[in-house]
Amino acid sequence: MSDLYFDDFKVGDQFKSGGITVTEGQIIDFAMRYDPQVFHLDAEAAKGTPYRGLIASGFHTMALTFRLFLETGVLSSCSLGSPGIDEVRWLLPVRPGDTLHVVGEVIEIRPSKSRFDRGMIRFRYTNFNQRGEKVLTMIGNQLLLRRPTSSPSM
Amino acid sequence: MSDLYFDDFKVGDQFKSGGITVTEGQIIDFAMRYDPQVFHLDAEAAKGTPYRGLIASGFHTMALTFRLFLETGVLSSCSLGSPGIDEVRWLLPVRPGDTLHVVGEVIEIRPSKSRFDRGMIRFRYTNFNQRGEKVLTMIGNQLLLRRPTSSPSM
Repeated sequence: MSDLYFDDFKVGDQFKSGGITVTEGQIIDFAMRYDPQVFHLDAEAAKGTPYRGLIASGFHTMALTFRLFLETGVLSSCSLGSPGIDEVRWLLPVRPGDTLHVVGEVIEIRPSKSRFDRGMIRFRYTNFNQRGEKVLTMIGNQLLLRRPTSSPSM
Repeated sequence: MSDLYFDDFKVGDQFKSGGITVTEGQIIDFAMRYDPQVFHLDAEAAKGTPYRGLIASGFHTMALTFRLFLETGVLSSCSLGSPGIDEVRWLLPVRPGDTLHVVGEVIEIRPSKSRFDRGMIRFRYTNFNQRGEKVLTMIGNQLLLRRPTSSPSM
């Protein structure tokens, strides 16, 4: 993929990632550090919870969602980070053996009023499992550099 | 802390966590797996970015926020997981050596209309650094069990 900048995106653009298979070991490792609740940590005890087995921490699924999107290369040249994320929704459990991929769609584009070298793009990220079911949606606010040659400040 | 259930919370209740010191190694390890952007991964190249040095992935700070809150024990007996999170805001960078703690405040309480054994509580989580500055805020929607003896369904 050639280098993309703020100016290259338009509303409706979609970018599809490759996949990742989530293992039991990865789920438990993440939960040990960041979300040690029984349904993320203990495959036996998890059978007695409403989830009826081990599921990935939602924070794990979020982090994988962004990682998969990053691998598309869309943000490689232009990312200045992010001030936040909205409307994170965990729609279905992610279980050991599930394979996830992500689609990021441009839903809003706002040039900065105060800094001419950048702008904000809102992406709706949707994370799908191997059955095509949505497991997570969230809206990321990404601060992106404008294409250098088009910047009035340079 | 004694076991808490949905019925034990009231709007305005606040719960303060212990602290955690975030190291350069932890920041880079997390970024390698989930957010391999230059300002999270490469301490030298990060000097040339707007952040002027290495900063933690926002997904790392989020996960630590929830981990610290979990350690208060508030959710230990009653957590049924979460359908989502709203209004994640990364307010200041988290840098190697920063020490974080979290305050969770109850901002809304809604008994379930369809399931008498549970309800939803919205917590506003605020993550502070060692200077008392807010580095992250977010609103978590937590599905919680009602106290068993008070449940009409049992």
